[in-house]
Amino acid sequence: MKKNVLTGIKPTGDIHLGNYIGAIKPAIALSKNEHYQSAYFVADYHALTNVPGREEYKDHSCKVAATWLALGLDPTKTIFYRQSDVPEIFELTWILSCLASKGLMNRAHAYKALADSNLDRGRDRDFGVNMGLFTYPVLMAADILLLKTDIVPVGKDQIQHIEIARDLADTFNKTYGDTFSLPQYQVEENTAVLLGLDGRKMSKSYKNTIPLFEESKKRQKLINKIKTDSSPPGACKDPYTSIIFSLYQEFASANEVLIMRERYENGISWGEAKQELGKVMNDVLEEPRETYLELINAPKKLNEILLEGAEKARAISVPFLKEIREKIGLLS
Amino acid sequence: MKKNVLTGIKPTGDIHLGNYIGAIKPAIALSKNEHYQSAYFVADYHALTNVPGREEYKDHSCKVAATWLALGLDPTKTIFYRQSDVPEIFELTWILSCLASKGLMNRAHAYKALADSNLDRGRDRDFGVNMGLFTYPVLMAADILLLKTDIVPVGKDQIQHIEIARDLADTFNKTYGDTFSLPQYQVEENTAVLLGLDGRKMSKSYKNTIPLFEESKKRQKLINKIKTDSSPPGACKDPYTSIIFSLYQEFASANEVLIMRERYENGISWGEAKQELGKVMNDVLEEPRETYLELINAPKKLNEILLEGAEKARAISVPFLKEIREKIGLLS
Repeated sequence: MKKNVLTGIKPTGDIHLGNYIGAIKPAIALSKNEHYQSAYFVADYHALTNVPGREEYKDHSCKVAATWLALGLDPTKTIFYRQSDVPEIFELTWILSCLASKGLMNRAHAYKALADSNLDRGRDRDFGVNMGLFTYPVLMAADILLLKTDIVPVGKDQIQHIEIARDLADTFNKTYGDTFSLPQYQVEENTAVLLGLDGRKMSKSYKNTIPLFEESKKRQKLINKIKTDSSPPGACKDPYTSIIFSLYQEFASANEVLIMRERYENGISWGEAKQELGKVMNDVLEEPRETYLELINAPKKLNEILLEGAEKARAISVPFLKEIREKIGLLS
Repeated sequence: MKKNVLTGIKPTGDIHLGNYIGAIKPAIALSKNEHYQSAYFVADYHALTNVPGREEYKDHSCKVAATWLALGLDPTKTIFYRQSDVPEIFELTWILSCLASKGLMNRAHAYKALADSNLDRGRDRDFGVNMGLFTYPVLMAADILLLKTDIVPVGKDQIQHIEIARDLADTFNKTYGDTFSLPQYQVEENTAVLLGLDGRKMSKSYKNTIPLFEESKKRQKLINKIKTDSSPPGACKDPYTSIIFSLYQEFASANEVLIMRERYENGISWGEAKQELGKVMNDVLEEPRETYLELINAPKKLNEILLEGAEKARAISVPFLKEIREKIGLLS
């Protein structure tokens, strides 16, 4: 039987190349692995913990869903849904809450980091902490367990959440009899950390990003701003210390990369290198960009795709929640 | 327009006279007030915070629902449902979590009392505290707000919960526009504190209760154990210090009470007084007892009644949650 793999996608605005290379590209590659049944969800209710404004909130969910679809996530071969379209998750969240010790949440990294930083600043430990933020490891456990997930691909900082989900599954099983299989995490060891225009990690907070679906002329302008050393045209350049080359590798074919390496050694000018980078990025991103714009401009169609995904998720969650309720001793 | 009144019923086993006089009787009387649209719900998911065993859990929900129906709660004139049959409550709980500051929960009485008692005993503050227990004021707010409740009749110890619900409603309204009306509490000032067999407050923990639907001979045996003073037959007795008389008042007509007061003054024997108490209790409770046993033995019928109640609750909660989702900016 195929293993069930689940990936949560936090809606954010302005998806950039760092998001694409570090998270989206490997996740979509995984969806094409035939040993897995992959499910992906837009964690829109999770994003509510930031209490964003209404329009921004709408916008982010929409953009992130359109981005993944445009980049090749196939909604007919995967289960692609919005968390908010699977209400069973929230009922299970309550059930798991009753099995989750508060101490477990006190020690959750995200909360602890926030509490520590509050204490460092001489504030109350819980300054600015809302209950959504504090309890979201339980929500995440419900996300994972309700879809009968076997594997959750995560970054290292997320391992603890999978451990909490395992803990709660185990406690439930011991209390009410075998019900949940225990999910495992799979750490993406090789995820690339993409450098930004200024040479630091590409991140919105450093304002050094290249937006993923930037229009090609504007993108070239940003590429032209990438920091380089002062070696002149004709001088041999080290591809492995060049941000331009590292980006080039992510978009060019293996053969193109080989050729480009030679051109670096033969003294390609930075200007030319930047032009070449712009070209391969264009080749890879132009079609997805068009699809993305189409989807963004057809919110009804996008919605339909996501609702179909939710149907598939609920084909699992509805009968499973019924089974869970029966185990607890609920009467209807 | 009628005011909406909501009463939550925590499922417990072995309902006794203290529960009846202190809570059930006044609540059912309220349901007959024509100025109110009354809703009552069995808070079965709330009861999960104690993580009871499966059979006990089933049993308690069943018994408490049968008790209220047997005592005259009219499911055609009120909305009588189980919390677990209205899944919208749990989605709203998540939404409200994101608006609830953790500090608010830290200060909630029930949690604080438990934390303080842990600290007093040299334990970790959160020893034995599960997340259901910690977060249930948010669940309670969702219970109240989702049914568009205007008034919640409460004991004094519950006032804070209604204040939390108001707080969250107000925060939501300020963030997303007017949506919730602010519920008010109505404190039952005159609720009788019923004394038990030994003269202390009637309470399961004192083992001094008279079960509500005890078989009449067994009930008389318990009544015979009620503590009295040693005044002999023929001696004038003060009705107002007698547990027997205070119980008698709850079951007899005004006229019967007047006559009984005279008999106390004229020196009724304690034995006779106990017999008379048994009689009036029998008159009032025999028919409900039969109905109760019928319902307990027809769980399918009981279930149907509660599911019909849930339909009525969901006629409110489903469209209202849709409106709430729309306000937040959810897309479907």
